[in-house]
Amino acid sequence: MSDVVVIGAGFAGLEVAKGLGRAGIATTVIDRHNHHLFQPLLYQVATAALSATDVAEPIRKILRRQKSVSVLFGEVARIDTAARQVHMTCGERVSYRHLVLASGAEHGYFGHDEWAQWAPGLKTIEDARHIRSQLLLTFERAERTTDEAERRRLLSIAIVGGGPTGVELAGSIAELSRYTLASDFRSIEPTATRITLVEAGPRLLSGFSTDMSDYARARLERLGVEVRTNEAVEDVGPTSVRIAGEDVPTGLVIWAAGVAASPLARQLGPTDRAGRITVDETLAVPGTDGLYALGDVAHLADADGRPLPGLAQVAKQQGVHLGRSLAAHITTGAAPTPFRYNGRGNTAIVGRHAAVFEQGRLKVKGWIAWFAWAVIHVYLLVGFQHRFLVSMQWLWRYLTYDRGARLIAGDYVETPDPAAPPAPRDRQRTPTPPGVAR
Amino acid sequence: MSDVVVIGAGFAGLEVAKGLGRAGIATTVIDRHNHHLFQPLLYQVATAALSATDVAEPIRKILRRQKSVSVLFGEVARIDTAARQVHMTCGERVSYRHLVLASGAEHGYFGHDEWAQWAPGLKTIEDARHIRSQLLLTFERAERTTDEAERRRLLSIAIVGGGPTGVELAGSIAELSRYTLASDFRSIEPTATRITLVEAGPRLLSGFSTDMSDYARARLERLGVEVRTNEAVEDVGPTSVRIAGEDVPTGLVIWAAGVAASPLARQLGPTDRAGRITVDETLAVPGTDGLYALGDVAHLADADGRPLPGLAQVAKQQGVHLGRSLAAHITTGAAPTPFRYNGRGNTAIVGRHAAVFEQGRLKVKGWIAWFAWAVIHVYLLVGFQHRFLVSMQWLWRYLTYDRGARLIAGDYVETPDPAAPPAPRDRQRTPTPPGVAR
Repeated sequence: MSDVVVIGAGFAGLEVAKGLGRAGIATTVIDRHNHHLFQPLLYQVATAALSATDVAEPIRKILRRQKSVSVLFGEVARIDTAARQVHMTCGERVSYRHLVLASGAEHGYFGHDEWAQWAPGLKTIEDARHIRSQLLLTFERAERTTDEAERRRLLSIAIVGGGPTGVELAGSIAELSRYTLASDFRSIEPTATRITLVEAGPRLLSGFSTDMSDYARARLERLGVEVRTNEAVEDVGPTSVRIAGEDVPTGLVIWAAGVAASPLARQLGPTDRAGRITVDETLAVPGTDGLYALGDVAHLADADGRPLPGLAQVAKQQGVHLGRSLAAHITTGAAPTPFRYNGRGNTAIVGRHAAVFEQGRLKVKGWIAWFAWAVIHVYLLVGFQHRFLVSMQWLWRYLTYDRGARLIAGDYVETPDPAAPPAPRDRQRTPTPPGVAR
Repeated sequence: MSDVVVIGAGFAGLEVAKGLGRAGIATTVIDRHNHHLFQPLLYQVATAALSATDVAEPIRKILRRQKSVSVLFGEVARIDTAARQVHMTCGERVSYRHLVLASGAEHGYFGHDEWAQWAPGLKTIEDARHIRSQLLLTFERAERTTDEAERRRLLSIAIVGGGPTGVELAGSIAELSRYTLASDFRSIEPTATRITLVEAGPRLLSGFSTDMSDYARARLERLGVEVRTNEAVEDVGPTSVRIAGEDVPTGLVIWAAGVAASPLARQLGPTDRAGRITVDETLAVPGTDGLYALGDVAHLADADGRPLPGLAQVAKQQGVHLGRSLAAHITTGAAPTPFRYNGRGNTAIVGRHAAVFEQGRLKVKGWIAWFAWAVIHVYLLVGFQHRFLVSMQWLWRYLTYDRGARLIAGDYVETPDPAAPPAPRDRQRTPTPPGVAR
């Protein structure tokens, strides 16, 4: 039996495992992926700027030196808290004395799960590859169609949600279409791609102060992004999205609006509106023995009674704290100590030379924040190899506007566009003659 | 109507398109992938050393400056040579005056297509990702099973075919298991993985001289690879492969034995035993008007009457030749000129410090050939960014034995091992206690 089972090897779970491993406590880490994912850069995989392997690191490799920690690659079906066992979907059961739930969050469609098929979200490597393929495919399809209205639809991309992910995606797709793809096609002008960013609340980046929101909006608009705030998405279909009563034809819709905690949270006790389980200040689930939760799956109120935000730094700090506190508790019987969050600032990127950074009263925007954003993210990547390769690719992209990872997965070649009209028969292809200005 | 339609954007097709583009000839390049693939390094993607995007370059980007060339992303259903039209699977038809077939080769299972499901081959990015996932999964499954015989089966990998791809895969998998994964697991010893390389012919690397074959065999055996020559694979199943009458239990079988030309070849005329269409020395299909074939899909006899080998340099030289010759023919009416192959040497890599290189009487093996192999392959990569990133990753791997691209695609988590016994119930997980020597 493991002393501790940790479910999830994200920022939170990994830190717990490292802390327990350092103390030599028998620990099993369960994850349904074999890799830890650096989610803050996942949008760059979705927009063909980085490759999937740049933001993923094998969990076994990270925990290689913690000999008391073993990694179990598989999916949890349910948790039997009475018997203190985790049931895996493959049928295996894993017994524990202490259970740490760090299974993170998933997309949330506000009760409209049927939208998921038309508006993919961005949480996993597969999500990022799927969005990348769909994004590149909408340009390919537009290049091939002869119908002008259809072409306009295909070259219309909507992003739902004005938080950091939505803003980053909108900025990155704008730069992809305005610069990277500018001279790749013969029949279409990728630079004319319509990009709509929809936010139901009154402003973008609501976690930042108002002037930062205004700055992000202005920068996106300068890149040609249509920013629509105070407007809700009312429906998502295969060829359009309804925004505040208006049907906007779309070739691609990306969902960056809602997150919902991992459904495992509900098995440990009562959850909040976002599906998170409430924990006390020691990160234990109140009224239970040996159950802990942290990161995006946990609801921990700060001094003002608001839940801590779903940020990597919150998850990481909680993981470090719980790893130490639980190790001390197991080895010496010490009482668990309370967690205190130490905000290290919040940053989001809009595009080239444009980012925002905020810590308390310190507010920075523009190219200094942009440079700080890049340095912080490279520093936070796990492993020297990733830091180096990502830096070099960013430098290359900065100098050339090029993006190397423009890969459409092969399984997509035969995917018919669900909304495409029947292909024209006997179309005469007429490439632009040489020397003609475009 | 395009003057020329080129089917396939591999080494051959791309060079033809570049040549025609330089002469301003209206050309359409059709490919079922959006990327050109640098196949000589694909085995490194399959063995987690490089990422997929490192060996793929968008076709549109490569041909961006050839304004008379357009790229059509889609699959060819059939060729109507009478009407001079290419029919796409989506229903579109593309008319041409000259057709260049450069659609390459696929796996060939010698009439046993049912083996494909158990013994994946390596031709596309998806193939490489699939093999990588299956390769990493067999270690994951071995770590989880409690049955000793089952564990031995899962840690047994067979590679069918002793040509360059088979030798490279065997060497790379040996190094992955002996070094990279050595301390990643708790229940298994990846270093004990049984690796079998099977070749039906009398020796490995039959395209090289005998002493090179002997050297490759000795180096592989030193890495612990079991090399079986003069033994044919008689059957492939989900859990074993029958080699010369003996059933060898396997966790993974990789097919590197046979190639068959793209089936489109048969639509242009009579083909040889490997499905290749015979062309004359101008690369035209004899007895036709405006039909050309080159690269792996074409059979062109050398001075001794033997077909030229399926090498990148053959395809590339043929492409350069046909691009020029056809451009001159179209613009000035000049008669097509004959192609002469200029062999620039042949190289294959076995492992660290171990490769072979041969050109005529010049034969080099060992670390000089290994270094030459690396320089040649970096040089041949398309684009500075790829050259730089691949070099850096090789340097990193050389220094650390680490491989960064150890990514199991998420869709695999629920894939049950077809041959796995029912999962044990209520198994007690016992991680190695800290401080215990392993």
